[in-house]
Amino acid sequence: MYNIGIVGYGNLARGVECAIRQNPDMKLCAVFTRRDPAGVKIQTPDVPVLPMSCVTEWKDRIDVMILCGGSATDLPEMTPALARDFNVVDSFDTHANIPAHFAAVDAAAQQGGHIAFISTGWDPGLFSVNRLYASAILPQGKDYTFWGKGVSQGHSDAVRRLPGVVDCRQYTIPVPAAMDSVRAGNDPELTTREKHTRYCYVVAEDGADKAAIEKAIKTMPNYFADYDTTVEFITAQQMQKEHAGLPHGGSVIRSGRTGWNGENHQTIEYKLTLDSNPQFTASVLVACARAAMKMKSRGQIGCHTVFDAAPADLSMMSREEMLAHML
Amino acid sequence: MYNIGIVGYGNLARGVECAIRQNPDMKLCAVFTRRDPAGVKIQTPDVPVLPMSCVTEWKDRIDVMILCGGSATDLPEMTPALARDFNVVDSFDTHANIPAHFAAVDAAAQQGGHIAFISTGWDPGLFSVNRLYASAILPQGKDYTFWGKGVSQGHSDAVRRLPGVVDCRQYTIPVPAAMDSVRAGNDPELTTREKHTRYCYVVAEDGADKAAIEKAIKTMPNYFADYDTTVEFITAQQMQKEHAGLPHGGSVIRSGRTGWNGENHQTIEYKLTLDSNPQFTASVLVACARAAMKMKSRGQIGCHTVFDAAPADLSMMSREEMLAHML
Repeated sequence: MYNIGIVGYGNLARGVECAIRQNPDMKLCAVFTRRDPAGVKIQTPDVPVLPMSCVTEWKDRIDVMILCGGSATDLPEMTPALARDFNVVDSFDTHANIPAHFAAVDAAAQQGGHIAFISTGWDPGLFSVNRLYASAILPQGKDYTFWGKGVSQGHSDAVRRLPGVVDCRQYTIPVPAAMDSVRAGNDPELTTREKHTRYCYVVAEDGADKAAIEKAIKTMPNYFADYDTTVEFITAQQMQKEHAGLPHGGSVIRSGRTGWNGENHQTIEYKLTLDSNPQFTASVLVACARAAMKMKSRGQIGCHTVFDAAPADLSMMSREEMLAHML
Repeated sequence: MYNIGIVGYGNLARGVECAIRQNPDMKLCAVFTRRDPAGVKIQTPDVPVLPMSCVTEWKDRIDVMILCGGSATDLPEMTPALARDFNVVDSFDTHANIPAHFAAVDAAAQQGGHIAFISTGWDPGLFSVNRLYASAILPQGKDYTFWGKGVSQGHSDAVRRLPGVVDCRQYTIPVPAAMDSVRAGNDPELTTREKHTRYCYVVAEDGADKAAIEKAIKTMPNYFADYDTTVEFITAQQMQKEHAGLPHGGSVIRSGRTGWNGENHQTIEYKLTLDSNPQFTASVLVACARAAMKMKSRGQIGCHTVFDAAPADLSMMSREEMLAHML
C-alpha cells in the first residue's frame, strides 16, 4: 500500500483523489493547501486538509506527494522544493522549460535521496511515450500531433479577459482533411491553420458590442490570429447546460516507411477521447506514483520522466499475471 | 554500433535486414540458415550467409542475435538453445505458451549471463504494451483488441490445404459497428462473430467443385465456423496482381471510467495500419535489440519482454534530445 499526499486542491487534485479510490494499492493520507484549510472540502472521508506550512512534518508518513499546482508559477518552485523531502510526481507542461525544470528537480531529489517524476499526464506524458516508441520503431518517418476536439483553458481564459465578455469556452478542433492526409501517407507539410480550427462559445455582457468582441478574438496574436476561428454568442444558461465539462483528447500519428527502399507505408496512431481532461491526467499521475515507488525500491533516485519507467512499473499486476493475460 | 546476427531468412528476416539499414547504430554481421547457404541470396552486400552449424564460432562477434524462426516448432527450441551463447530477441507469438517459453529462455540466458527479449513485435509486443499502459491508467475499464484489415497467414494456409485449392489469401476484417460501439463507451459483450468477419480470395483448380470448397471453408472448425465468411474465387493472375502484399494492422481500445462514481468515459485507442506486417514486426525486433544492449550494459541479464524495457531504451536519442524534442 502506497501512502499518497496531494498538494493543491483544484480540478487536477480532485481527479487524483478519484483515481486513488480506483487503485486498491493507493491510500490518500493528506491534502495540503495554501488556502485556509477550513474552506477546503474534499471528497474522501476522514482525510485531513492541512496548511502547506506543516508539510515537512509529514516527511516520514507520505510515500509519494502528487503536486497539483500550475506550470506557470507553482511547479517551477514547488517541485524542486518538495523533492528534497518527498518522492514527487508533477504534470509540468511548459514544453520549452522542461530541460531546466528537470535539472532543478534532479538536483533537489538527488540531494534528498528521493525519486521524482516530472511532466507526466497525456501531453507531455502518454503522447510523448508514443512519439518515442513510434520514432524508435519507424526511424524513417514523420510525427504529427493533433489536439481536440477539446476545451483549451488557456484560450478560454484569454477571451474571458476581453472587455464585454462574461464567459467563454474555447474548443480546439483538428481538421479532418489534414488527419486523413497524414493517415493516407501523404506526409503533408501542414501550417498551423491547416491543422486545427478554433471555436469560441461566448457569453457577452448586456449591450456589449458583439462585432467588436468577435474581431478582438479573431485577430488576437498567438491565440487566434493564425487559425480559422468561429465565434458564437450564447446565453449564460446555455453555457452552464451545454459546456460545463472539460473534454479533450487528440492523436499522435507516426507516418513511416519500411523496406529496402522505403517502399511500404506504416502508420502508428495513438488516440485519446476524454470526457474529463483533468481526471485523465490525474489517472496518469497516480500510475506514475506507483512506478516511482517500484523504481525507488530498486535503488533509483533523482528526476525521471515517463520515458524512464518500464511499462511494468506502472501496473499493479505481477509479472506472472502480465505474461498470462496482457502479453 | 551494435553487431547484429540474423537466424533464418524468410519474410521476417528480410524485414530485419531492411530495418537494420534504417538504424545507423546497427550493423548486420551475418545471417545463419538451416538451408544450404549457397542457395540463400541476401540484400546486404558483403555480409556472409552461414550454416547454423557454425553459429557458436560467432559467440564473441555478435552483440544481439535476432531469431526469425516460427513459433510453432522453431523458437521453442531455438531461443533457449541460443540464449546460452548470445543475447537474443524473438517474436514468439503463441500466447498460451508464453509463460513456459519465458521460463525456458530465462534459465538459459541466466546460465550464460546473457539478456533475452521474447515475444516482441506488435501482437504480442506493441499491442501488449498498450494494453498494459491503458489498464494501469484506467483500472476501471475494459480492453478490446481488433485485428485487420489484414492477411492472416494461418487462415490462408488452412484453406490452401483443402482439395481443389491452388492458392488462398484470407483477410481478417474488424466489424465497424462493433468498433463504433466500443468507442462510444457502450462496453458491449461481443461474440467472436460480432468482432470480425473473414474474406477469402481463392484460386481453384480447373474443374474443381467450387460449391464444395466454399462449404468446406465456411464450416471449418476454429478457423471459420464461428465467423461470417465470404469466399470469392479469382484467377491466379488476379491473386498475383491484387494480393501480393502482406498488409495487416488493428486496434487496441481501452474503454474506461473515471470520477468519484465513474461518471466520465475515457477512451484510449492504439491503431496500426501496416502495408507490410513482416517489415513492421521486424522493426520492433530491431528496436528491442537496442533496448537489450542498453539494459545489458546496466548489468541486466535473463529473459525480458516489452513490459520491462523503458521507452528510452528503445530509442537512439540521448536523454537531452528526448527531453528537448519528444516530451
